[in-house]
Amino acid sequence: MANPIVLEKIKREARSKSKKEIIKEPIDGVLRIIPLGGLEEVGRNLTALEWRQKNGQSEIIIIDVGIGFPESEIMPGIDFIIPNTEYLEKNKENILAILITHGHYDHIGALPYLLEKIGNPIIYTAPLTKGLILKRQADFPEAVKPAIEEIKKTGYRPIRLGHFTIEYFHVNHSIPDSLGFFIKTPVGNIMHTGDFKIDFTPVFDQPADLGRVVQLAEEGVKVLMMDSTNANNPGHLVSERKIMENLELIFQKAKGRVIAATFASLLERIQQLIYLSGVYGRKVVIEGHSMKINTEVAKRLNYLSYPKGIFIRPEESLKMPPHQVSIFCTGSQAEDGSVLSKIADREHRYFRIIPNDTVVFSSSIIPGNENVVQDLKDVLVRQGAKIIHYQMMDIHASGHAFADDIRLFTSLVKPEYLMPVHGYFHMQKAVEEIGVELGLPRENIIIAQNGSVVEVKSNKVVLSQERQPANLVYVDGLGVGDIGEVVLRDRQTLAQDGIFVVIVTVDSQTGDTRTSPDIISRGFVYLKESKELLRETRDLIKRVIEKNVRFLGEESPIIQDEQIKYRLKEEVAEFLFKRTKRRPMVLPVVIKI
Amino acid sequence: MANPIVLEKIKREARSKSKKEIIKEPIDGVLRIIPLGGLEEVGRNLTALEWRQKNGQSEIIIIDVGIGFPESEIMPGIDFIIPNTEYLEKNKENILAILITHGHYDHIGALPYLLEKIGNPIIYTAPLTKGLILKRQADFPEAVKPAIEEIKKTGYRPIRLGHFTIEYFHVNHSIPDSLGFFIKTPVGNIMHTGDFKIDFTPVFDQPADLGRVVQLAEEGVKVLMMDSTNANNPGHLVSERKIMENLELIFQKAKGRVIAATFASLLERIQQLIYLSGVYGRKVVIEGHSMKINTEVAKRLNYLSYPKGIFIRPEESLKMPPHQVSIFCTGSQAEDGSVLSKIADREHRYFRIIPNDTVVFSSSIIPGNENVVQDLKDVLVRQGAKIIHYQMMDIHASGHAFADDIRLFTSLVKPEYLMPVHGYFHMQKAVEEIGVELGLPRENIIIAQNGSVVEVKSNKVVLSQERQPANLVYVDGLGVGDIGEVVLRDRQTLAQDGIFVVIVTVDSQTGDTRTSPDIISRGFVYLKESKELLRETRDLIKRVIEKNVRFLGEESPIIQDEQIKYRLKEEVAEFLFKRTKRRPMVLPVVIKI
Repeated sequence: MANPIVLEKIKREARSKSKKEIIKEPIDGVLRIIPLGGLEEVGRNLTALEWRQKNGQSEIIIIDVGIGFPESEIMPGIDFIIPNTEYLEKNKENILAILITHGHYDHIGALPYLLEKIGNPIIYTAPLTKGLILKRQADFPEAVKPAIEEIKKTGYRPIRLGHFTIEYFHVNHSIPDSLGFFIKTPVGNIMHTGDFKIDFTPVFDQPADLGRVVQLAEEGVKVLMMDSTNANNPGHLVSERKIMENLELIFQKAKGRVIAATFASLLERIQQLIYLSGVYGRKVVIEGHSMKINTEVAKRLNYLSYPKGIFIRPEESLKMPPHQVSIFCTGSQAEDGSVLSKIADREHRYFRIIPNDTVVFSSSIIPGNENVVQDLKDVLVRQGAKIIHYQMMDIHASGHAFADDIRLFTSLVKPEYLMPVHGYFHMQKAVEEIGVELGLPRENIIIAQNGSVVEVKSNKVVLSQERQPANLVYVDGLGVGDIGEVVLRDRQTLAQDGIFVVIVTVDSQTGDTRTSPDIISRGFVYLKESKELLRETRDLIKRVIEKNVRFLGEESPIIQDEQIKYRLKEEVAEFLFKRTKRRPMVLPVVIKI
Repeated sequence: MANPIVLEKIKREARSKSKKEIIKEPIDGVLRIIPLGGLEEVGRNLTALEWRQKNGQSEIIIIDVGIGFPESEIMPGIDFIIPNTEYLEKNKENILAILITHGHYDHIGALPYLLEKIGNPIIYTAPLTKGLILKRQADFPEAVKPAIEEIKKTGYRPIRLGHFTIEYFHVNHSIPDSLGFFIKTPVGNIMHTGDFKIDFTPVFDQPADLGRVVQLAEEGVKVLMMDSTNANNPGHLVSERKIMENLELIFQKAKGRVIAATFASLLERIQQLIYLSGVYGRKVVIEGHSMKINTEVAKRLNYLSYPKGIFIRPEESLKMPPHQVSIFCTGSQAEDGSVLSKIADREHRYFRIIPNDTVVFSSSIIPGNENVVQDLKDVLVRQGAKIIHYQMMDIHASGHAFADDIRLFTSLVKPEYLMPVHGYFHMQKAVEEIGVELGLPRENIIIAQNGSVVEVKSNKVVLSQERQPANLVYVDGLGVGDIGEVVLRDRQTLAQDGIFVVIVTVDSQTGDTRTSPDIISRGFVYLKESKELLRETRDLIKRVIEKNVRFLGEESPIIQDEQIKYRLKEEVAEFLFKRTKRRPMVLPVVIKI
C-alpha cells in the first residue's frame, strides 16, 4: 500500500512540474508594474503587476488595497483617499488575485470600497492580516464579502497564478505577520519588500527571514521594489529590544497608573506593554474601538501572549490601586474622539487623570499633528499627569528600514534593477543613491510615480511613456470621488477669510433695487462691530446695480444677471480687500421680482 | 587740578549712592510679575513687572513686546497674534520702560502695534536689536517712533528706573546680542534668562557670560525666570561649532551651487554660511526680503564679518560657475511667497534649480509645516537638486537650552524661587522637576499662565488669585482684535464641509414661495453632479416653508422670519447630513415680497 503522504507529494510535484513546463514555453510578453495608490508615496496603497502577452492576453495581480490619509491643510474635511482603480476596473476580468503584505489600513483599508469594483478577486495574505480584513469588513455590512486564502509562514508553499508564481518571506514591521513577496514571472523575478524593517532582536516577533530572502534571491532578482520611507535616515533603525528596555524603565518608576497611547495597529508595541504590565503586577484595560478590535483579533488568532486574567474592564480598574493598573488606548495623535482626547476633555466615560498617572506617547507624531499633540500634552499635564514621549527617550521605533538596513537588504539581494516605492520622491532618490553606491548603474534605478507603467522585458526594464489615471479619489462622509480640486480650493478659501453673501432684490420692471441689500457673512469679521463697513458696502452694491442696470431691457435677462453678478463680485471683493486686507469669498445673489 | 575722569567717577558714585539710599528706605510694597504675551507659552511675547506700594504708587517695566504665530488648523487665516495689553493700557502712565532681550519677532514684533497704546515708553536693548526694531518700524510709517536707549555689553552700566535697578548679561541664542536681565527690586532680585542657550564654543559669538551671571547671583536671586522651551530634551544642546563642522562637509562636497534656506533671523547660521562661502571660494547672494533686511542691519552694525566683495547680485551669479556661488534665502518652512517656494514653482525672477545644486534646510521645521516642507523637498528633488536637511545630519541647533543646560544654569544661580517661562505647561513642569531635583521645595516653583499675577514679597513668592486679561488678540490683514472665537469657529466649519446657502422668496400676502428656491453652495459637493440631491433639497425647502407659513399673519413678521429660517436651517442640515454624512454650514435667507 502506498504511503498516502508520499503519494500526495508525488502528485503535487507532478502538478507543479507540469505548470513549470507551461511557463517555460516560449512567450512573447511584457510585465507591467503599475503603482496606483498613495498621495506622493509611490505604490504605498496599491500596485498592479500585469503580465501582458503580444496576443493581447493579460493577467493582473494586485499588491495591497489601502487608503491614504489626507494632508489636512490642503484637503480640508477629507476623511481619506482611496486609490484610483480606473485601469483595474476596465481590466477586472484579468485580475487573478490580490496579495496583501500586512494589516495596516494604508494596505487593507480600501478593500470595502474597491473589492466589488475590481471583481472581488481572491485575496492571499497571512492569518493576522486576514483577521483584520474580516474585522474591518464587518463595519461595511453592504460591501461584498471577501474571499481570503491564508498564507502559512511554515512550509512556504508557492502560489501559482497564471504565469505568476508567488513566494513570500517574513519581514519585521510594526505589526506581526508582515510579508514581502517574491514574484516569478516569465521575464524575471520581482521582489517586493512590503513595509519592512530588519530587527535582529525583536521582542515578540521572529527576525526578518533574511536566510529565505537570500535563498530566493539566488534565483535572480530582476527588480527589487524597496520600501524607501526612511531612506533619508542614516544608520540602522533601533531594535524593538531597546524600546522594550526603555518602556520597562517607565514601568519601574511609575507610581500610579500607566496610560500608554499608541497606534491601534502597532500590535508589537501593545504586546510589549501587556508583557511589562504582567511583569510589574498590573492589570490591563484596552480602550478605544480600533485598539479593542485589533487586540481582539490578535488574541483570538494567538498573536498576543499574556497571563490569564490580565485584561479587566475599565470599571474594575477604578476599584484597584492605581499602581496595579495599565490603560492602553488610542489618541497618540490627539485625534478628535480618541480615548486620550476624551480623557483630557473630561468626557471619557470612566477615566479622568488622577495624581501620579504616567501618560506615555509611544508613537511618532504624524506630520501635521504636532500642534494638537502639543496642546493635548499640555492639558494632560495641567490635570496632573506625567508625560513621557518619544523625543525624551527611545520609546518608539519606526516600522520602516533606515538607510543602512536598505543597504544591507539590497546587498543581500543583488537585484538587477532597484525600484524605490512607498516614499516621497526625495526618499526614492535617497534609495537611488544607495543603489548607485552599491554599484548599480544609475539607469537601473526605476523612479516611478503613481500611474507610471514600468515595463519589464527579459532583456531590460524601462519606465514607459504610458500613464494610467492615478489622481486622488477623495472620500468625505458617504461621498467617494465626488470631491475634486475645485471643492477643496473653495474650502481653503473659505477657511482663510470666510464668506460674504450679497443678496439684491431687483424690480425687473423698473430696475430699482427693492429695500436694502441683504448681507450674510461668516468667518470674515464680527458683523456687529463692522456696521460702518457694512453700510459702505451696501452703498457700493446699490451703485453697482445702478451702473449696470441699463443692461436690463437691452439684452436677455440671463446675461444681465450674470453681468451684474460678475460686477458685484469684483467690486465688493476689491472694496473689502482695500478696507480689511482680507479676501472673503464673495457670493452675489440677484433676485428679480 | 583734579583728574576729570576721577572726578566724574566720584560724581557718579555719589549719584548712585544717593539713589541706593532712597531705595533702602523702608518700603511696604509688592512686586507683581504678570506674563501677558504668547499663546500657551507663558510670557513668551511680553511680561510686565510692576512694583506696587501700599500707598497705591505703581511702577511698571515691560520685558519684550513680540508677536505670536497662529496654529494654522485652529486659527485659519490669522496672520499673527499680539499680546493683550488691556492691563498695561489702563496703567500706561506708570510704565517706566521696555526691556528687550533680543531681536526676534516673537520679542520685538508687536512694538508697531502696541507702543502707542502703552504710552511709547523708552526701550532699552542691545545695538543689533535696536537696529532690527528700527528697520521693522520702517514698514509701519504711521506708527509712533520708538525711543531706544542702547545697552552696551562692555562696562555693564546698571539702569535705574524708579525702584528698579536693571543689570544685564550676555547669553547665547540663535541671534547675536541676546540678553538676560537681572532686576533688583526692593523685595529681592529677579533674574530673567531671556531666550537662551549655553554654548561654550560658539563660532561667531562669545560664550554666554556665566561668570557675570554667577557674580550677579551672589547678590541673591529671589526668582529665576527660566526659558523652558527645551526642558523636555535630555542632555546638553549641541554647540554651533559642531553645526559649522557639518556645514563645512556640505561645502566640501558640493559640486554646484549651495542654496541654503534658514530663518531670516538666524543670523548666527547666516554668518557661518557666509564664512564657509569665503573659505571655499564662493560669492554670496542673499535673497528674500526679511533675510536681506536682517543681514543689512547686521552688516551696518558690524555684526557680520565677511571678506570684501563676497556679496553679489543675483544676476551676477548667473554668469559665474555654479561651484563659485552660494545663495542664502528664506523658505525653510515652505512659506508661500518665500524665495525657495518661488524657485520650486519656477516663479523666481532669477533662479531655477540646475543640476548639482545642493539645497540645505538649515532650520528645524515649525510644527504644522511638516507636510508642506515635505512637498517642497519633493519638488526640488524632482527638478534635480540634492537636499540636505537637519534630520540627516546636525546642521541646525535650537536656540534654547536643553535640560542639562537648565540644570547647570539653575545650579550656578541658586535661586530661591524658580519660574519657568516661554514654554508650554508641560515644558514648565519639566523645569519644575529639574528644580526639585536640585533641591528646591516644590512650592518654590512658580507655574504661572499668561494673565497670572505672581506676587513677590520680601518673605515669600506666591501665585495670586488675581487674573489680568490675556486672551489672544488676532491680527488678520488690517484688523487687529476684530477676529474672535466665533469667527474662527465659522472658518473651521467652512473648511470642513463648505457652505450651503438657501434663498427662498416668499409672497408676504399669500405665503407662497415664488419660483424655485435658489441654492448656492461652495466646498460641499460638485453641484453639477448632485442634481438629484439638489432637487430633493428644494422639495424639502418648499415643504418646510409650507409647514411654517402659518406663522405668517399670526405673529409679527420678524419672528416669523426667524422661525422659518431656524426650521430651514435645522431640516436642511439634517437632510444633507443623512444623505452625505457631511455638515456644511447652512445659511437660510428668506426674502419677503
